[in-house]
Amino acid sequence: MMLHQDTICAVSTPPGQGGIAVIRISGKDAVNYCGKIFYPADPKKSLATQKAYTMSFGRIKENDEIVDEVMVGLFRAPYSFTGEDTVEITCHGSIYIQQTIVRLLLAEGCRLAAPGEFTQRAFLNGKMDLSQAEAVADVIASSAAAAHRLAMNQMRGGFSNELAKLRAQLLDFVSLIELELDFSEEEVEFADRSKLIGLVKNIQSIIGKLADSFSTGNAVKSGIPVVIVGETNAGKSTLLNLLLNEEKAIVSDIHGTTRDAIEDTVAINGVMFRFIDTAGIRNSKDEIEMLGIERTFKKISQASIVVWMIDATQFSEKIDEIAEKIIPGTKNKKLIIIFNKIDRISREELRLLEKEFLTTVDATRLYLSAKYNKNTEKLEQALLEAADIPRFSENDVIVTNMRHYEALTHALKAINRVEDDLNKKISGDFVSRDIRECMHYLGEITGEISTDEMLGNIFGKFCIGK
Amino acid sequence: MMLHQDTICAVSTPPGQGGIAVIRISGKDAVNYCGKIFYPADPKKSLATQKAYTMSFGRIKENDEIVDEVMVGLFRAPYSFTGEDTVEITCHGSIYIQQTIVRLLLAEGCRLAAPGEFTQRAFLNGKMDLSQAEAVADVIASSAAAAHRLAMNQMRGGFSNELAKLRAQLLDFVSLIELELDFSEEEVEFADRSKLIGLVKNIQSIIGKLADSFSTGNAVKSGIPVVIVGETNAGKSTLLNLLLNEEKAIVSDIHGTTRDAIEDTVAINGVMFRFIDTAGIRNSKDEIEMLGIERTFKKISQASIVVWMIDATQFSEKIDEIAEKIIPGTKNKKLIIIFNKIDRISREELRLLEKEFLTTVDATRLYLSAKYNKNTEKLEQALLEAADIPRFSENDVIVTNMRHYEALTHALKAINRVEDDLNKKISGDFVSRDIRECMHYLGEITGEISTDEMLGNIFGKFCIGK
Repeated sequence: MMLHQDTICAVSTPPGQGGIAVIRISGKDAVNYCGKIFYPADPKKSLATQKAYTMSFGRIKENDEIVDEVMVGLFRAPYSFTGEDTVEITCHGSIYIQQTIVRLLLAEGCRLAAPGEFTQRAFLNGKMDLSQAEAVADVIASSAAAAHRLAMNQMRGGFSNELAKLRAQLLDFVSLIELELDFSEEEVEFADRSKLIGLVKNIQSIIGKLADSFSTGNAVKSGIPVVIVGETNAGKSTLLNLLLNEEKAIVSDIHGTTRDAIEDTVAINGVMFRFIDTAGIRNSKDEIEMLGIERTFKKISQASIVVWMIDATQFSEKIDEIAEKIIPGTKNKKLIIIFNKIDRISREELRLLEKEFLTTVDATRLYLSAKYNKNTEKLEQALLEAADIPRFSENDVIVTNMRHYEALTHALKAINRVEDDLNKKISGDFVSRDIRECMHYLGEITGEISTDEMLGNIFGKFCIGK
Repeated sequence: MMLHQDTICAVSTPPGQGGIAVIRISGKDAVNYCGKIFYPADPKKSLATQKAYTMSFGRIKENDEIVDEVMVGLFRAPYSFTGEDTVEITCHGSIYIQQTIVRLLLAEGCRLAAPGEFTQRAFLNGKMDLSQAEAVADVIASSAAAAHRLAMNQMRGGFSNELAKLRAQLLDFVSLIELELDFSEEEVEFADRSKLIGLVKNIQSIIGKLADSFSTGNAVKSGIPVVIVGETNAGKSTLLNLLLNEEKAIVSDIHGTTRDAIEDTVAINGVMFRFIDTAGIRNSKDEIEMLGIERTFKKISQASIVVWMIDATQFSEKIDEIAEKIIPGTKNKKLIIIFNKIDRISREELRLLEKEFLTTVDATRLYLSAKYNKNTEKLEQALLEAADIPRFSENDVIVTNMRHYEALTHALKAINRVEDDLNKKISGDFVSRDIRECMHYLGEITGEISTDEMLGNIFGKFCIGK
């Protein structure tokens, strides 16, 4: 384990100007360094004698000049987020003050924290395992209820406890098997093969389920990909704007969240959908073949839900051709067909126009007017049904992290080989090697196995100050 | 005084996503409302029994679901910023979590705080006077050392204590004078006129100095206006970029401060300069007369420092005309003449070319190469000298607020009338009226006199959460 001799500091609140900001200092000299610039309002007190878990009002000074009046909160190792002595300075939220206080701390001997370094220290000091540490970043990044719920579950322990237990059991077996190898000429069997088979099957089942949950977990985390296809002027944009505006307003009613960043995602009942734009398929002979369908087809392959919008007042001559191309691409995907502009055509007229294949294909059919009928509930309902995201409870175990998924996949391959080895009664050193490989990948998830490079990759994606 | 029956809450840290965020709740039900959604890690504890000035770790829950793991700090009235019971929730900095916690608090009965409402309550609850409350916003907004220093001074009490004392002395006199009026037929004099004259002179002197300090204070707060003029290709942009880039890097090295926002201001040695761009004056006959000078002349009138850049290698034929127009406009302003591109001409050659008037006009002359000589120290030094901003100490009294300046101007007029009244031995009711008017304006600064509209104007400019 790395030794953290230095003391780090950073602004932990969002960048920019606000009412207040919080500067966090962690490490063995946190109290010492901070005590040199902080002057409690009561001169008889000092930061060094301040009780843990209390706040003290006072001034930050640079020489004789008052930089700010602040509140300082104190945490003592190991009872802090990082497990180290930690001081949190709550100052006025001007950028000038934030920078000045950080500058003063650096001058006293602090080092500016690297991205995610506070969380990395929490991991290295045994306050949380690696998968929990990774979940901290997910908790901060999640912007819809379902994704947030999964990240919270993972941060609170999630499935890594279970993996650690399985790994410990594997360790027992592999130790016995390796002991056998020491006595290889005597043909002893310390490890009970039938019990080992039982464990292997248990691990296969658990890891298999976890790996399978990733497609759901990833969809929840990144948003369920929905592609909206259709000819130009079918009303795709109107529909998308309707969905985006209503929900975006909710996402951004308190903060001035940047609209661009959430341009094409929408949370419906706490589930994030990611809309993939397609250029409208043109109604001209050449272009249908050449551009429209080909491009759209690619985008369909990225989606799990396909929304096909049809102008109910104007069935194009090309609709059969389009259908022939689109429908085969929606196998294993959910198809929602929307007959739009239903305000301008009666149901009877539509029934006469409507093509046979449109009534028989396996799809949810919606009849609506995106322009006049602002009630998009039906579509939202259809999207939620198509998404088929189970309602998660606190104890559901869902993998959302690509790194974990990859490790699980490797672990599963290794444990399958172990099963194979045992069935074929292959010699112990192969069994041992495959068990060790499975253990390695399980350990990578929980952080029992980690390299500096791996940690660098993980924590480098955090924001500074966390 | 308004009664605050309701409890307010808001995110107090800068908007957006970060490591952590702080949600502040203030009012008589702060502990009650927050206690309904906060579950301390130690189930034997509760927010209601938590000691003031301590922090408690626990979970925010919505029904049975964990929203976040948070740290909750508690302050009890009157020992808090607002003077009311206050709870500060430090949560993970996701926008989703921030919004969810605010939503839960609103559901319990909190109201979303209006901009500046926490500070307004601090004022209304007697924790600070109005000028101090206003300084809170200035402290948050100030981005250079000198402006920050002035705002801090004002927040810590500044000149309003002194004004309150003068106002109290005026009140004594006006009471006596008004008592005389009740006995008007008896021609008594309760108020010692010579002592009153002494007070009036003291007030004139103090208010006069304060009002005079505003031009300095305002320059420090908003940046000292510097206009850079000169013909096209004289090197204005090169110079400006040099000044801006070097200093902007310092302003924005920690946070991702938006570059646009500080586009044309630069802090040099802690003093903010605001550069006013001018289109280069063209060297063509018509345009000099028509456009260039006229526009530039207007901008010169807005500046307190004029930097005139001259291409030392190319004295234009028009330089006399330009000088005739520019130089008269720089009366009562500081003029810095820069002979640029000095790397391409010897001092002897320049001396032969240089016009007589350029050596005699009252200006600081600098010879430099903006392009090759990256050393802009000389110009920075010249700007600082021209700005002539005294180094402020903690006890310096400088007015930076336009509202205060206006009130001081009115108060000065009224007190001058009082002097006049007394000299002319005008009857007591006029003296009383003028003293009352002076008191009114002094009271407006400290907040002893305030209207809802005035408070609305002042606090409406704050950010939410402060």
